[in-house]
Amino acid sequence: MTSELAQFLKSPKTVSIVGCPFSGGQPKIGVDEGPIHLVEAGLVNQLQELGWNVKFDGHHQFEDIKYTLSSSSATASSPAAGTDNDTSTTSNHWDPPIGILKNPRLVSRVCEEVAKVVSGHAKKGELPVTLGGDHSLAMGTISGTLDAHPSAGVIWVDAHADINTAATTESGNIHGMPVSFLMGLDGNHQAFSDYNKSNSPSLETPFAWIKPVLKPSSIVYIGLRDVDSGEKKILKDNGIKAFSMHDVDRYGIGKVVEMALDYLNADNTNPDEVRPIHLSFDVDALDPSVAPSTGTPVRGGLTFREGHYICERIWETGALVGLDLMEVNPSLEDDVSVKQTVAVGCSLVRAALGETLL
Amino acid sequence: MTSELAQFLKSPKTVSIVGCPFSGGQPKIGVDEGPIHLVEAGLVNQLQELGWNVKFDGHHQFEDIKYTLSSSSATASSPAAGTDNDTSTTSNHWDPPIGILKNPRLVSRVCEEVAKVVSGHAKKGELPVTLGGDHSLAMGTISGTLDAHPSAGVIWVDAHADINTAATTESGNIHGMPVSFLMGLDGNHQAFSDYNKSNSPSLETPFAWIKPVLKPSSIVYIGLRDVDSGEKKILKDNGIKAFSMHDVDRYGIGKVVEMALDYLNADNTNPDEVRPIHLSFDVDALDPSVAPSTGTPVRGGLTFREGHYICERIWETGALVGLDLMEVNPSLEDDVSVKQTVAVGCSLVRAALGETLL
Amino acid sequence: MTSELAQFLKSPKTVSIVGCPFSGGQPKIGVDEGPIHLVEAGLVNQLQELGWNVKFDGHHQFEDIKYTLSSSSATASSPAAGTDNDTSTTSNHWDPPIGILKNPRLVSRVCEEVAKVVSGHAKKGELPVTLGGDHSLAMGTISGTLDAHPSAGVIWVDAHADINTAATTESGNIHGMPVSFLMGLDGNHQAFSDYNKSNSPSLETPFAWIKPVLKPSSIVYIGLRDVDSGEKKILKDNGIKAFSMHDVDRYGIGKVVEMALDYLNADNTNPDEVRPIHLSFDVDALDPSVAPSTGTPVRGGLTFREGHYICERIWETGALVGLDLMEVNPSLEDDVSVKQTVAVGCSLVRAALGETLL
Ligand SMILES: [Mn+2]
Ligand SMILES: [Mn+2]
Ligand SMILES: [Mn+2]
Ligand SMILES: [Mn+2]
Ligand SMILES: [Mn+2]
Ligand SMILES: [Mn+2]
Repeated sequence: MTSELAQFLKSPKTVSIVGCPFSGGQPKIGVDEGPIHLVEAGLVNQLQELGWNVKFDGHHQFEDIKYTLSSSSATASSPAAGTDNDTSTTSNHWDPPIGILKNPRLVSRVCEEVAKVVSGHAKKGELPVTLGGDHSLAMGTISGTLDAHPSAGVIWVDAHADINTAATTESGNIHGMPVSFLMGLDGNHQAFSDYNKSNSPSLETPFAWIKPVLKPSSIVYIGLRDVDSGEKKILKDNGIKAFSMHDVDRYGIGKVVEMALDYLNADNTNPDEVRPIHLSFDVDALDPSVAPSTGTPVRGGLTFREGHYICERIWETGALVGLDLMEVNPSLEDDVSVKQTVAVGCSLVRAALGETLL
Repeated sequence: MTSELAQFLKSPKTVSIVGCPFSGGQPKIGVDEGPIHLVEAGLVNQLQELGWNVKFDGHHQFEDIKYTLSSSSATASSPAAGTDNDTSTTSNHWDPPIGILKNPRLVSRVCEEVAKVVSGHAKKGELPVTLGGDHSLAMGTISGTLDAHPSAGVIWVDAHADINTAATTESGNIHGMPVSFLMGLDGNHQAFSDYNKSNSPSLETPFAWIKPVLKPSSIVYIGLRDVDSGEKKILKDNGIKAFSMHDVDRYGIGKVVEMALDYLNADNTNPDEVRPIHLSFDVDALDPSVAPSTGTPVRGGLTFREGHYICERIWETGALVGLDLMEVNPSLEDDVSVKQTVAVGCSLVRAALGETLL
Repeated sequence: MTSELAQFLKSPKTVSIVGCPFSGGQPKIGVDEGPIHLVEAGLVNQLQELGWNVKFDGHHQFEDIKYTLSSSSATASSPAAGTDNDTSTTSNHWDPPIGILKNPRLVSRVCEEVAKVVSGHAKKGELPVTLGGDHSLAMGTISGTLDAHPSAGVIWVDAHADINTAATTESGNIHGMPVSFLMGLDGNHQAFSDYNKSNSPSLETPFAWIKPVLKPSSIVYIGLRDVDSGEKKILKDNGIKAFSMHDVDRYGIGKVVEMALDYLNADNTNPDEVRPIHLSFDVDALDPSVAPSTGTPVRGGLTFREGHYICERIWETGALVGLDLMEVNPSLEDDVSVKQTVAVGCSLVRAALGETLL
């Protein structure tokens, strides 16, 4: 297995934990505590026991970003207010909504930094494992992965498609939109074009840094069961491959993962190698009975074993180059549920990094 | 999908909700409240949002039936007692048991009325959705469907076979017998022949109106796991197709539903069209952890997703001409369980009427 | 089905219940109460209703063994202490650890007696059903089965591989080791060779009676998900077939059981007959949500139905010649959990002895 991994990862195999205590892409306080709980539950040590060289230098705090954003607006209003409240449902005075998009500058700048960090690790032949935090962070992680591994495909495991555009979102929570930004979908262009017109030329669209690096044919969804009607249309119009829970019932998880892998590999731009895979795993893909402590749980999800099977099987391909574990929110539900959800999160990461039952 | 449905349903696609607050086919008070809870949970609105024209003029009360039955026996005993207690475990004086069959006249007349209502809607090109109430009502719904669509096949989703005859039933609860009446099985003939002999010639067998419209080869069961030994013999002797939970384990729900559909279509009397399907769904087919509030729960049932998969897949055929959602009993279990069971009931109906995950 | 069974079992079909209230193979008090609860829940009667002639003369008490063991060490220390405390975590003075193996003489002698009992029943054409008690007892049951049916294969359903040797065990609990003794693995030889050297020649290795009757190719595991690293190496080095929960996810339980049966039959030494099967079922193979009252529960186990499917399918082969139902511990978890676990235990036995859903 190591020989296969050697295709993309350098020896000794090294995982870089990118802890992102960030909740600006959605309104519920607490998801920023997710990475802290995952690490405190012993994840670093668990990965070392699996034979990994683990790099973890503490969680990213994104303080510079907040300072820069608040300072740059200081002439307009008081910098004292709001700077320590980046996760509240009310906007910071220095980051007012664009249209209904909440915290747009903060989310964008944080993801930009995450992209650089992930890309840096990946280019050194390390495996970046990003612990969220909310799923808006995937704008950063996938940008970073594709910068280092341009031919990579994405497997997105989630109850939700997270592909709303500025034109379709009803909540304005950016954690429901990252895929649309990564694809550069039209619905965003229009919204920001309007924004640009209404602002002074010196103010750039905050999301301008995101390149449309993700082709619609380079992503496969697994686990969908709560997709907005606007998103359904986007998926259809762009011919995006998605295995909903209906498909998991129909074919079984074993067949679904094979079909997902086959789909990505059929579109491989470099037929001489297996296609690199970025796995973006939202814990709400799991059934709420398995992972209750998450912001937007939806009934009828993946079982404990189905979730792990996906991770185990992707590891087996030897092609994993990036992993996100998102939306663990230790502020939601009771202590037992939190402990269970955090334990499942660690367990999924271990499964994706080679822990096997036999 | 609309074009396929147009084979049996008229445009604009119209669903007729047949609310049947009836519990006379079994002893537990409360199942008559099932349809009221389902409608109060917003089912009408939910179906409208799916694009259906929804007809619902209130729940059927069957008061005329009770009045007629009690009046016709008024010369023999006091009409004052019992008329408002049709769901109790003790018999109404005006509807004494026949053999051990409980409430035979009431169940029969109610089903006769339901048959007329369902047939009427179906003949107008509408989709009748009958909300029970107990599963004895299916004598009415399936009689009605087959009156309008004589070539229809039945998919019966249930923990139970509901095919006891008057000769095999140990409880005398008619909700465990509707299939035997629809097939005109011998066990019933004998019992009623005895009844006729012992009564004045002016008294007709109450179930005489039911035609043996359902051929043994026109029904497929899914989900069985609590079948009486007498019923096992009936299933075997009549060569009736049944997929038990053992088969769901063995093949997976995806394969089982395909086999069920193939079985019905292989016996299609009109090979020029897809065979019309009547889906009779007893919520106790689901595992009690999914649908706890029902009168006869049995462990080891369908998961939330398996139940929905059946409904979704049958909708996909474009052949649905009748739907029953039966045995939701809001008097059983705690409030959370009731709310969950009612929500699942609505969700199953939506899935059978075209709600998809993608 | 009777005709197939007649290959190995005599008419009238007779099941011999071997109740083994024994907990010496592990540290938790209470698993010795398992067989008592299973019988009190009505198992004897349930099997009679399935058409079996049931032989059950009370649970084995193994008092002679304890007396003999304590007496033989009486010259060295007081016989009064410890004789009534065979299940505690501290050693009996008359049965000190060998290496770190706990209660080695007691476990060995009890299993030797169980082997004789099981073999005796099997040779009379009866079906021995052994109720544990901890899984160390399988050293006895499988020795007994293979004595009567030398060509039998074993299907071991468990979260654990129970194949540690004296060289790999970290706990010294023998219920995690029975398979290694049945195979005569090297790791045990060395440990006991050391033991023999350090003891007077008159003291025989307590496990010397166990013949290495079980070939590595004669066992198949189903349900594994918590296997020690030493065990993983043993499984690999010996080419032992194992279907972990990963395989159950990948193929579905239906396919997994077929592959297990095919594997055993491919190695059948008597191609003129179906290969006899001994099923050793540890309830901890089931998910803890299904069977919580057991000593070493592990998440991500078999569902209620998957567990039953295995039993039902093995019964269908007509080849069952021995059954173990192990590790029900009525002292663990609350009353509801205990009742549930005991009920599931009885239900698994019934499924393995021919109870079908249809
Ligand atoms: Mn997400
Ligand atoms: Mn999500
Ligand atoms: Mn039922
Ligand atoms: Mn029913
Ligand atoms: Mn075991
Ligand atoms: Mn075990």
